[in-house]
Amino acid sequence: MPTLVLLRHGQSRWNLENRFTGWWDVDLTDQGMAEARAAGTLLKDRGFDFDRCFTSVLTRAIRTLDLVLAEMDRLWLPVAKDWRLNERHYGALTGRNKAEMIDQVGAEQVQIWRRSFDIPPAPLPTDSPYDVAGDRRYAGIAVPRTESLQDTIARVLPYYEAAIAPALRAGERVIVSAHGNSLRALEKHLSGIGDADIVSLEIPTGEPIVYELADDLTVRDRYYLAERA
Amino acid sequence: MPTLVLLRHGQSRWNLENRFTGWWDVDLTDQGMAEARAAGTLLKDRGFDFDRCFTSVLTRAIRTLDLVLAEMDRLWLPVAKDWRLNERHYGALTGRNKAEMIDQVGAEQVQIWRRSFDIPPAPLPTDSPYDVAGDRRYAGIAVPRTESLQDTIARVLPYYEAAIAPALRAGERVIVSAHGNSLRALEKHLSGIGDADIVSLEIPTGEPIVYELADDLTVRDRYYLAERA
Repeated sequence: MPTLVLLRHGQSRWNLENRFTGWWDVDLTDQGMAEARAAGTLLKDRGFDFDRCFTSVLTRAIRTLDLVLAEMDRLWLPVAKDWRLNERHYGALTGRNKAEMIDQVGAEQVQIWRRSFDIPPAPLPTDSPYDVAGDRRYAGIAVPRTESLQDTIARVLPYYEAAIAPALRAGERVIVSAHGNSLRALEKHLSGIGDADIVSLEIPTGEPIVYELADDLTVRDRYYLAERA
Repeated sequence: MPTLVLLRHGQSRWNLENRFTGWWDVDLTDQGMAEARAAGTLLKDRGFDFDRCFTSVLTRAIRTLDLVLAEMDRLWLPVAKDWRLNERHYGALTGRNKAEMIDQVGAEQVQIWRRSFDIPPAPLPTDSPYDVAGDRRYAGIAVPRTESLQDTIARVLPYYEAAIAPALRAGERVIVSAHGNSLRALEKHLSGIGDADIVSLEIPTGEPIVYELADDLTVRDRYYLAERA
């Protein structure tokens, strides 16, 4: 039976500082690393195992995966890293403190930017210190200057279809270590969640979400591993 | 200019215990992890960077690479893991303490097994607790029961030609994190070292060895990075 485990990275330094992160490459905090190790221990204790791993090109997701695999004695598994699993690009919000933004433009505007389906924040200014367009990990890629959740879905799902779904159809057990919004994209697709509802689906950090799939990749069951006895 | 950096993993638990390891999957010691981090810092400080990484399917080499890449802020680089970069399979020596083996069969016999080019140790008994033939990371692979250095070379070099050399010919900067004997295989090939001499080439742990190559992959320079000012 194809099994897909989704895992949002543990707490990052900017999660802790309450700043919008997006494509800026911050590392995990000590707590975030502990969350990742605990996820690995939980997966191992519950008898989970994997054949293939996918993650973004952002350190916090890669390190989360590495910590999980180390706990499971599975560092030798193949790992594909792809920018299309990156967090949503938060545009001009990148690097800004969420509380400061609320003071500046109001809670309503911040809520629209954070939680609307198709309205992106203002684009990241070209003089922003958080511009990653020149980073060579994105060579040959049209780095966005901002993204709505809809925009994020539009690059996550083609990657799912091209790389992840074929592994699942071959019966492989797959783990995806990624971000709140790239995982929302996958959950929306798999669980058939509507545009209005997906924006409020909260995905906790470091909590393995298990999808048990049929051979045609329809969902038989979906649960938080920690909540199952 | 194609650049190839070879790195032998840091001290492992069985290096510390003076035991033959081969394909048995022991982890690094704290000192081994420190060696790996120091190698990453040295590479970064000297302005080295990479486009592609290769390692074995053994934890000590993978973890060494991960620690190097973390120090270099390069966890996002593609990493290929392949059994053909594994350490030489030490056959019946696997798991045995080197000093005990000397007491048991004599220093001369141990030296022949360790350092002859084409004489493998006795095969690993099928009831050995260190038999990895059933490990699923080797599914579909004819796991050897023992290897000479010559046998090791015979599976390392085809992988070099199929996977590593094409990346170098494309001008990529490559790092290979591997083991004493899989790295001997590469050094023998690149530097044209004879059968009699390669067995005594000692490769220190955690010391980046730099090969600067011409476009046809002939060697322009080869040096230990730590020894260059």
